[in-house]
Amino acid sequence: MSLARPLLLDLYQLTMAQAYFELGMDDLASFELFVRSLPRVRNFLVAAGLAQALEYLEGLRFGPEEIDYLASLGKFSSAFLEHLRGFRFSGSVHAMPEGTPFFAQEPILRVTAPILEAQLAESRILNIVHFQTVIATKAARCALAAGDRQLVDFGLRRAHEADAGLYAARAAFIGGFHGTATVEAGRRFGIALSGTMAHSFIEAHQSEEGAFRDFAASYPSGATLLIDTYDTERAARRAAALAHELRKRGGSHQIRAVRIDSGDLAKACRAVRGILDALNCRDIEIVVSGGLDEHSIEALVSGAVPVDAFGIGTALDVSADAPALDMAYKLEEYAGKARRKRSPGKATWPGVKQVFRERGPEREIVRDRVALATEVCPGEALLAEVMLEGRRLAPPLPLEQIRAYCLREVCALPRELKKLEQASGAEPVQISAALQALAARLDAETN
Amino acid sequence: MSLARPLLLDLYQLTMAQAYFELGMDDLASFELFVRSLPRVRNFLVAAGLAQALEYLEGLRFGPEEIDYLASLGKFSSAFLEHLRGFRFSGSVHAMPEGTPFFAQEPILRVTAPILEAQLAESRILNIVHFQTVIATKAARCALAAGDRQLVDFGLRRAHEADAGLYAARAAFIGGFHGTATVEAGRRFGIALSGTMAHSFIEAHQSEEGAFRDFAASYPSGATLLIDTYDTERAARRAAALAHELRKRGGSHQIRAVRIDSGDLAKACRAVRGILDALNCRDIEIVVSGGLDEHSIEALVSGAVPVDAFGIGTALDVSADAPALDMAYKLEEYAGKARRKRSPGKATWPGVKQVFRERGPEREIVRDRVALATEVCPGEALLAEVMLEGRRLAPPLPLEQIRAYCLREVCALPRELKKLEQASGAEPVQISAALQALAARLDAETN
Repeated sequence: MSLARPLLLDLYQLTMAQAYFELGMDDLASFELFVRSLPRVRNFLVAAGLAQALEYLEGLRFGPEEIDYLASLGKFSSAFLEHLRGFRFSGSVHAMPEGTPFFAQEPILRVTAPILEAQLAESRILNIVHFQTVIATKAARCALAAGDRQLVDFGLRRAHEADAGLYAARAAFIGGFHGTATVEAGRRFGIALSGTMAHSFIEAHQSEEGAFRDFAASYPSGATLLIDTYDTERAARRAAALAHELRKRGGSHQIRAVRIDSGDLAKACRAVRGILDALNCRDIEIVVSGGLDEHSIEALVSGAVPVDAFGIGTALDVSADAPALDMAYKLEEYAGKARRKRSPGKATWPGVKQVFRERGPEREIVRDRVALATEVCPGEALLAEVMLEGRRLAPPLPLEQIRAYCLREVCALPRELKKLEQASGAEPVQISAALQALAARLDAETN
Repeated sequence: MSLARPLLLDLYQLTMAQAYFELGMDDLASFELFVRSLPRVRNFLVAAGLAQALEYLEGLRFGPEEIDYLASLGKFSSAFLEHLRGFRFSGSVHAMPEGTPFFAQEPILRVTAPILEAQLAESRILNIVHFQTVIATKAARCALAAGDRQLVDFGLRRAHEADAGLYAARAAFIGGFHGTATVEAGRRFGIALSGTMAHSFIEAHQSEEGAFRDFAASYPSGATLLIDTYDTERAARRAAALAHELRKRGGSHQIRAVRIDSGDLAKACRAVRGILDALNCRDIEIVVSGGLDEHSIEALVSGAVPVDAFGIGTALDVSADAPALDMAYKLEEYAGKARRKRSPGKATWPGVKQVFRERGPEREIVRDRVALATEVCPGEALLAEVMLEGRRLAPPLPLEQIRAYCLREVCALPRELKKLEQASGAEPVQISAALQALAARLDAETN
């Protein structure tokens, strides 16, 4: 699970690196990572994955097995492979703090290093930051919809392989989730673990009643019973009866919640809440799951449906409505000179840039300005130096702190952007006059 | 990158396992993995990931660090943790061969083991097989659209973290891709590597012409030049001029292809082909990339646009239009008795099942029948035993062989299902009368 898998890169990164090596092109290059445009179903994005990106850069080495494999391809000179053997990332990184909401055309991370080094980092840096940004954004939307209800990540099984399951839990927590069912994410990131039971447990028993009793008996800290295997309302009554039985017996074993995973959730929750309340089990919470996303959360919450917690799986872990962002890592400056790609529809803003965020009297976000890093603009500069000469400048922040920052910053977004539906206006981003002038000047130069 | 990450599971798998352990419930359980219904944008699916699923099961162990972490949660008894310490998967697995096209409600993999073991495998088995099935299916659609053109996976940067990038390359190859840009996938799976150059290489140079010359000089086996950084047609002429220059000089250095990554690809390809042909460079191939999917491939191919190879990134590696499948791993039999979940919209076909595939005179697929494994039905049985007593029965098949099988079987699908648009009829799947009778009988029993 080490982050430094040095050959997780695109072949062209190595062929370009070899060319730079042979040509002696080793001037400093600045690459910036940004999103070209937002998906229609996103009004803002949440930056995430920075900690892993820095860990990757700091640990990037090419070992003997990797060098041997590259040699076997017959594409690389022994001098270049020898250079790779001693490779260390020696550059600097500027980035927005994890959890920062951002918009299209805003650089969220900048790598400055000899061009060979900066180019070798391209694909994996994108791979790391893109995924967690996709998930943190989706999670933030769920959190906006859920209000004060609990949100739990249930998505490991449908996440795109192992790492996605693990880092989805981390990114979801940053975006506002409260816990995860993924045990390894609890171990690695200290995220609260949450779990109930599967239908198979009920089905493996002779009776649902027996299954509930057995499960509660082996779960000392308060069980959550799954009640939709056969007949949800009957199962709710069984859960209530068992809760009374356990109370009478005393001890820590108790029924903490019931989970409903299918059917008309609003109707089922109301019926189950009614049954539990009538049977004097007001303390038993209701957890819902089963194909939920931010829109179904919003519908349940706005309908005042009695739900205490949402388990969100597939829609979160693959960000089903926007599984990818148009995120790029582009050369903006080389050897002290601003650079610009002009490909149709993919033109970039040249030069080393900064994002200045202006706020209102309540700290609410009013507008951002993308400007040259050398400009002096009103507002706070969002990109800060986090790595120098290949070393992180500070230990990783506690995840709780990143999450709290994210919740505060998302809350500070303009009201219109916090709605789930597409915002009517433009994103609150301006391009500075100096930056526009630089782009025009570069376009006028011949190539 | 080891597959056995034992804590990549859902907490409830462990809590249920503890309950089974304490209750002494250790009868054999059969869980089947299947897709409840196909996404609207898929007419068939391609099974993939079996090799990794078996490797996972064979290697699953809980080490001291994992046990210590679980102990720290205060949810598990020391007897149960001691049991986990000695855990080995001892069950059997039946599965369809990787590369098999399949439909909704067809089990593609069955795990039979003491229920604790089979339950512990749930999430990770799903996580492995789900992802590669998603990607192999998407790749097969691209291959149907591309005909005899080359397909290369360019998607690492937008794949969902590291494992997804790696296994997307494998699954795409199974589905019909020819190569990948992801170097680690070349190393791990022997997939042909393919790569060109990035815009940054051009931009870092004083001139595009200089960049082309430098790149070709350091690329002994034939370079692919990216020609859309500034002005595509002008760059095509530069590429042709350089090709002539290199030919005159002799040696292995040459221009193999040009790549176009933006703009109106059909128009650009026609213009570039015209330029190259007119300049006597008919041997220089055209590679296109940039937001392509099976639909844009089909449009270019059906328009007879001169394209030799497609680089497919995001749409492939996240399967953008269908990033997840409604795939489940459900208990179908325990202690010799068939089981059935009846949750609304999620009812399962009970019992241990087999899929029988009937073919026409040209081996074309006519229909499938989902039946009880004990039934005798016409056609070939698709599920075969691949693991017994926790050991694989055969070494993994060469990936080339899986790919060839997949291409043959996809080709054998009914014509209607091979179209990219939604097929008008139902999937060619029948549920056997005996299976329907069993489900009705179980429903009639009280719980």
